Amino acid sequence: MLTIPAVGWSPDTRAVRILDQRLLPAQEVVRDLQQLPEIIDAIRTLAVRGAPAIGVAAAIGLAVALEQASTGRGAQARRLLPDYVARLIAARPTAVNLAWAVERMARCAALVADDTLLSTLRLEAEVIRQEDVAMCRAIGQHGLPLIPDGSRILTHCNAGALATAGMGTALAPVYAAHAAGRLVTVYADETRPLRQGARLTAWELSRAGINVTVLPDGAAASLLAQQQVDVVIVGADRITANGDVANKVGTYGVALAAKAHGIPFVVAAPWNTIDPATPAGRDIIIEYRDRDELGALPPGVPAWNPAFDVTPHHLVTAYLTDRGLVTPPFTLSVL
Amino acid sequence: MLTIPAVGWSPDTRAVRILDQRLLPAQEVVRDLQQLPEIIDAIRTLAVRGAPAIGVAAAIGLAVALEQASTGRGAQARRLLPDYVARLIAARPTAVNLAWAVERMARCAALVADDTLLSTLRLEAEVIRQEDVAMCRAIGQHGLPLIPDGSRILTHCNAGALATAGMGTALAPVYAAHAAGRLVTVYADETRPLRQGARLTAWELSRAGINVTVLPDGAAASLLAQQQVDVVIVGADRITANGDVANKVGTYGVALAAKAHGIPFVVAAPWNTIDPATPAGRDIIIEYRDRDELGALPPGVPAWNPAFDVTPHHLVTAYLTDRGLVTPPFTLSVL
Repeated sequence: MLTIPAVGWSPDTRAVRILDQRLLPAQEVVRDLQQLPEIIDAIRTLAVRGAPAIGVAAAIGLAVALEQASTGRGAQARRLLPDYVARLIAARPTAVNLAWAVERMARCAALVADDTLLSTLRLEAEVIRQEDVAMCRAIGQHGLPLIPDGSRILTHCNAGALATAGMGTALAPVYAAHAAGRLVTVYADETRPLRQGARLTAWELSRAGINVTVLPDGAAASLLAQQQVDVVIVGADRITANGDVANKVGTYGVALAAKAHGIPFVVAAPWNTIDPATPAGRDIIIEYRDRDELGALPPGVPAWNPAFDVTPHHLVTAYLTDRGLVTPPFTLSVL
Repeated sequence: MLTIPAVGWSPDTRAVRILDQRLLPAQEVVRDLQQLPEIIDAIRTLAVRGAPAIGVAAAIGLAVALEQASTGRGAQARRLLPDYVARLIAARPTAVNLAWAVERMARCAALVADDTLLSTLRLEAEVIRQEDVAMCRAIGQHGLPLIPDGSRILTHCNAGALATAGMGTALAPVYAAHAAGRLVTVYADETRPLRQGARLTAWELSRAGINVTVLPDGAAASLLAQQQVDVVIVGADRITANGDVANKVGTYGVALAAKAHGIPFVVAAPWNTIDPATPAGRDIIIEYRDRDELGALPPGVPAWNPAFDVTPHHLVTAYLTDRGLVTPPFTLSVL
């Protein structure tokens, strides 16, 4: 597990502290952020990333940025709140946890008087953080039966400790199985363009003493064809009411290959990743990112660089959440 | 089209001249190679790459290296020949054209006396080169009906002019359609780990004034799901008797996604890429390459880096060769 959490409070609790993931694995740099623009920039440039970690960063970030900008005056903080909420939510459009955490903070603010507004937001942000830690632990426990001794797991991107305030989502069962003394081997897709698999998943697992091998994204289908994988586990940025899954681009191709070779494809995510208000994957707005992320290209050649893709529900074997294994349709009554 | 061919003779015809593809698109450097170790090194390090170009480089390389090492004495060249043949073939195990070209040179040598051995090998190498140029042109013409005006084509890796001595294989119909005045748009998979799509396909198409957009390998399935592609065309390093296709790693995943979305998946390759002696894809030896190709990884983390994958024949809509569209099983009687 990580000695430095991906996201939390600074020691004086006046800032949100993040481990800057743009610099991993070469450098371990923590940053304490207090102003809204730098918090938004950290989310947008993926200094902090992973849906749950973004939610926690936005919640703590909202509390500390409002406190700082209002110099502790609740009435002033309340006037700033709607603009801060809107700007935070706009930082990354696809991750549902970001809007979920920020809106929860705003609802909380609406219930209290000005003189307790800022202290209530601090408290609520800390509750969101602690819930995230507990959520990870619960996913790990519920996922333990999926990882018997000797398991070989393929994952895409990073849905590990670095993507949460706790022990991760897709990697939580891996950590739990390792802690239970089971031998596990993880295959990590490189995950272009930003290489979260090669840089982050490989870094945090190897640090924890867990076997991890990196492969190019294009090699995942071959690895599955060769039956070198027992289970695929990926995270999710948004799960729609019918069970379609938005996750890091490349996930859909892995799901198609897993299906073709009869290998279970498990989506692990906190319960709040399920978005019952969005009926299906076709309703998800996908974020397109800069050409520069792809590295050197010949002059004038554009890039098509979606951050996420949508895996249709019929390719998903199981949804592993902090409430256990769940099944779509995820109706409001179940929530 | 390229003003500098990917492979050919040096102006004095004493060396094989290659355009060093390791340096593209940043630098255009040609290298004249005369000694067997530097020719093998160029093949192994992908300074020259693409099955047809490797075949031509090996044929010209064998002729010039034997001439140089024997100082023009045919008897001496004949003594060196078996060792040179074996070492060239071993340079890259998966590409069938390499062995095909070198063995053709060896058979030719067996038919002539010592005093004409070296001149015969030069002539045969030039015939192989010219056949390659003509093969590309024929694939382009046979493929023209696949690319009506306004076509959007997805390709993986580089099976273009840079992969041959001529106008390419998978890209030959694109060049032919462009030359016929048709509007074409090419999507080029980045093709990790060595980025042949981003570096080479994008470079040669943009140079020719053809619209090209680069995407991460993991985004190809989304692009196909969005019906933004009319036809997928890829090259092949080896086609087995039953129609299974070894090509750059990542091809298989693209084929699965094309099938899932009803988009034609065409394999374009010279006729001699078909290897009737290999019954099926499972019989192909796949080359595994170095961890270093994947870029920076955390210390001690290994990589799984196969150079090729195998696409089963049931995912291939058509085989486009210099003899037209052909269908498996490719029996010896047909060849």
